[in-house]
Amino acid sequence: MLQSYETLRQESIETLRAQIRSGSYRSHTAGLGKNLLQANLAIIPEAFALDFMRFCQRNPKPCPLIGASDTGNPLLFTLGHCLDIRTDVPAYNIYRDGRLEGSVTDISALWSDDLVAFALGCSFTFEHALIEAGIDLWHISNNVTVPMYRSNMETTPAGPFRGAMVVSMRMIPDERVRDAVAISARFPLAHGSPVHIGDPAAIGISDLGNPDWGDAVPVEAGFTPVFWACGVTPQAIIQNAALPLLITHKPGHMLITDIPDDAEIPIITKKTL
Amino acid sequence: MLQSYETLRQESIETLRAQIRSGSYRSHTAGLGKNLLQANLAIIPEAFALDFMRFCQRNPKPCPLIGASDTGNPLLFTLGHCLDIRTDVPAYNIYRDGRLEGSVTDISALWSDDLVAFALGCSFTFEHALIEAGIDLWHISNNVTVPMYRSNMETTPAGPFRGAMVVSMRMIPDERVRDAVAISARFPLAHGSPVHIGDPAAIGISDLGNPDWGDAVPVEAGFTPVFWACGVTPQAIIQNAALPLLITHKPGHMLITDIPDDAEIPIITKKTL
Repeated sequence: MLQSYETLRQESIETLRAQIRSGSYRSHTAGLGKNLLQANLAIIPEAFALDFMRFCQRNPKPCPLIGASDTGNPLLFTLGHCLDIRTDVPAYNIYRDGRLEGSVTDISALWSDDLVAFALGCSFTFEHALIEAGIDLWHISNNVTVPMYRSNMETTPAGPFRGAMVVSMRMIPDERVRDAVAISARFPLAHGSPVHIGDPAAIGISDLGNPDWGDAVPVEAGFTPVFWACGVTPQAIIQNAALPLLITHKPGHMLITDIPDDAEIPIITKKTL
Repeated sequence: MLQSYETLRQESIETLRAQIRSGSYRSHTAGLGKNLLQANLAIIPEAFALDFMRFCQRNPKPCPLIGASDTGNPLLFTLGHCLDIRTDVPAYNIYRDGRLEGSVTDISALWSDDLVAFALGCSFTFEHALIEAGIDLWHISNNVTVPMYRSNMETTPAGPFRGAMVVSMRMIPDERVRDAVAISARFPLAHGSPVHIGDPAAIGISDLGNPDWGDAVPVEAGFTPVFWACGVTPQAIIQNAALPLLITHKPGHMLITDIPDDAEIPIITKKTL
């Protein structure tokens, strides 16, 4: 039986993961697994993995690496107990040679011995903290997807991985911009502080009303557009590199980990201080 | 002409690097390049680089990765302008099959197309912050090397890289332990918060007076032993893996980068907010 979003909102990670694994829950994960770190997913052949790790190290704001599997091992054991990357994401996108082939809810049939899975931090973490601090986020209050834009800020390349940074934009009340910067800076595993504040044209965005991904939001007086590095960047960059195979989460349908979203490091440890 | 430590203490990074590059300065770097990020160095063959990056990702406290070169490219361009890893460290240790072969001040003759250089954060950064906060560090006041111990805390393995975490110990006044934790937590690129506080036996250390590396310090009433993950860990782990070639900095003789030690990310960027 397919599970609804509302049914699962208060569920434990064990229940959530079981529903996702069985294919009973196939929808987006915003607001689920409350206070657990959620992650973007990129699965690529090992031949490209070293360059991709270098790319993430050099571009930690768009690509905050929080997990890397052993080659051919589908268990992301640093991020969850028995977390199986083949089944534990609600929906996946499959790309071949940079082109979207389709979406599936299970990649067991596609998994092979030469694949490496990478998990990257996502903005849900700092958005949660902004809302807790009383900063309203229009796209969340209105249940649409945050607007995302291809900027003219170049990433630092590594091997075949190169291209422009994708940014997400949130309209922040002018008097709360400073707070939004300080709050998001506390989450380096979730893109950290903004990469640009104010004039969109300065980073190559000509029309805020026409995002490249997601939905436009109202641009009103008294609010400043604030731009954060976006987790769509690695996806766009890997697509651009046209690898023979790339598997990602379907946008919004993230990997929910066992890691608290305020953890100092994104690793399961036996003891904590 | 060999340069003395005192002569270079107030010099700019450009002057410092020129003196190190020419071989005129060959000594330790503690207190040099004030407020610049210093780094541990590990150079290994590319065949082991992916596993080593996974090891660093899984063990960010002992192995906070702040830079990774392209294979065969000696310029660590994300950490400094024209920073050449073959010449810009005051002294290097050369290991073959896990055994120390000797120390040199220039590795140009050893560099080859299949090598990858990794820079890892070091404790100088948070020590500087502790001292600024009025927490006296005995080993610094007395100009000895911090005591380091092999603990019984296992790292999370990746490929051939596995083994116990090495920890450094600082005696902190009981009433400042909480501050020391909070201050060091602000520096995830420099080992972050402590991995253990108090009883050394709990992490497999039988005698504080007999460190495995560095110098013993007085253990006095009113002070608590506080243990941080140590940058010697990756060196010990790689030695243990007995790679055909490993080049490290000589302990205390660090790589001085162009990056401010309070930078949000360890990357040279054209613009900052």
